[in-house]
Amino acid sequence: MRRCKFCGDEAYVVMRSPKMALCRVHYREFVERKIERVIHRYKMLKEGDRLLVAVSGGKDALATALALKNLGYEFECLHINLGIGEHSQLSENISREQCEKLGIKLHILNLRELVGAGIGEVRTRRAPCSYCGMTKRYLMNKFAVDNGFNVIATGHNLDDETAFLMGNLLHWNLNYLSRQGPMLSESDKMARRIKPLYELTNEDIENYVRLFDVPYVHERCPYSAGAKSILYGKVLKEVEDKSPGTKLNFVKGFLKNRELFPSEDIVLKECRVCGMPSLGEVCSFCRFWNLNKPLNLKVNIVHDDS
Amino acid sequence: MRRCKFCGDEAYVVMRSPKMALCRVHYREFVERKIERVIHRYKMLKEGDRLLVAVSGGKDALATALALKNLGYEFECLHINLGIGEHSQLSENISREQCEKLGIKLHILNLRELVGAGIGEVRTRRAPCSYCGMTKRYLMNKFAVDNGFNVIATGHNLDDETAFLMGNLLHWNLNYLSRQGPMLSESDKMARRIKPLYELTNEDIENYVRLFDVPYVHERCPYSAGAKSILYGKVLKEVEDKSPGTKLNFVKGFLKNRELFPSEDIVLKECRVCGMPSLGEVCSFCRFWNLNKPLNLKVNIVHDDS
Repeated sequence: MRRCKFCGDEAYVVMRSPKMALCRVHYREFVERKIERVIHRYKMLKEGDRLLVAVSGGKDALATALALKNLGYEFECLHINLGIGEHSQLSENISREQCEKLGIKLHILNLRELVGAGIGEVRTRRAPCSYCGMTKRYLMNKFAVDNGFNVIATGHNLDDETAFLMGNLLHWNLNYLSRQGPMLSESDKMARRIKPLYELTNEDIENYVRLFDVPYVHERCPYSAGAKSILYGKVLKEVEDKSPGTKLNFVKGFLKNRELFPSEDIVLKECRVCGMPSLGEVCSFCRFWNLNKPLNLKVNIVHDDS
Repeated sequence: MRRCKFCGDEAYVVMRSPKMALCRVHYREFVERKIERVIHRYKMLKEGDRLLVAVSGGKDALATALALKNLGYEFECLHINLGIGEHSQLSENISREQCEKLGIKLHILNLRELVGAGIGEVRTRRAPCSYCGMTKRYLMNKFAVDNGFNVIATGHNLDDETAFLMGNLLHWNLNYLSRQGPMLSESDKMARRIKPLYELTNEDIENYVRLFDVPYVHERCPYSAGAKSILYGKVLKEVEDKSPGTKLNFVKGFLKNRELFPSEDIVLKECRVCGMPSLGEVCSFCRFWNLNKPLNLKVNIVHDDS
């Protein structure tokens, strides 16, 4: 039987990078400290921030909410029902159950109610994953701005980030490279976006959430099958298995050298329809969903401004 | 039965990127044209060059010699016996046989005769692949310089280059990145180095050499087992299988953006022992092999200076 490096109790997890075995108590501490260090290192949160955590019902968002709560941060959650049949209904139900268990206020947006159709229910040549990403980013940000949140935390983890990085390097998408990272600063009508799980793998996160008795959605979105990011994740796993630590060094080296990639000087306008920051006259959200008046996502939130 | 896109004869190869089937005649033409285009695009060879082709006995070097010969280039070959037991003896024998069949003059260097030991026969903490690469590069270049060759062609192919590129990106070895490419310009006492197979995969090359009745060494060097480059090659193959063309676009995108990576301003000295370009007082070859006088690799070559 492997034993915990710190207390000698039965090991709960045997890690390869760093190489050590930890019991349940010390594994939880290890993960939460790692998240806390990432938050500090990248200056993700500061006094007075109003934090919104995006919850999908999946393990990554759950781990984000669990860890932030355990670390003593205050926040509310937002779930977006994307209208992808049973998958979305299950995701909404489980998100509700998670937030109830954690005692966190949950807000829910329903895409079909807001724009008349769900992901995959609209005639377009764009792949669902492409406009789904854009839609989620817009709604998260609009909800945050409308309700006074200045920071949004998402569950993006090391596997997501390395797969994305690999794809962007294989195809030399320089624009994406210069913008990629653990944090996107806030600006006018744009909440800061942070990724507290930036240095944790899928496996780390699965082991972490398994410590708690909170359910999460195991199924992938039905549209994700065949996504390139899954392929990149698979081959990165092979490399990581042969040389543990490769993924973490890959993103760390990237962040150290990110300034090599030119960043576009983007001048944002105000969308003629919704007034949110936009590259063109009308923002990609209002254009894609064919809106002619802004969504109002304001809800009654009582802030404790003590 | 699949038929040749051009003549309708039975297909010899069915390619995925570009997607087409070709008979033996048109496949050979396709490969040789591709090599010719690479030579022209990167301005690898010009009138008056004296070309040396490095032959290992393997398929890549053989393909390089075959194609350059079929395309009408004049050159001589160099084989280096690295002193790795039976593997090196077989490689030398097969290199001899290849050059005899092709009617090309072959020069042979024997590492053990030159410095007293073969690869793997020396006490060092460096991995064999590391000092083997350095040793081959030095000997090829010294032989070229001593005998009036100003260009060295090697068999590096698209799989080698993409694996190397991936490794250097995963580890952010910026120095290697800025120097990586299909050609390294010549300078004082440094022959130009060219890679005519830069855009061809292992599979392309196997299919090409199979057209000719010339044997080659199929076995990998015994020291290569476990090399990271083999792992990177394997995962890149998985990506290529799912999206044909990825590897070629990967290197092409890299070459287009190579100037993003800073190149060191290296000031080379003359090695105190051999007089060749060196970073330190003594070059890495003379230092590693503990030499106290220069190797003289000059042979009697009759150049046709008409």
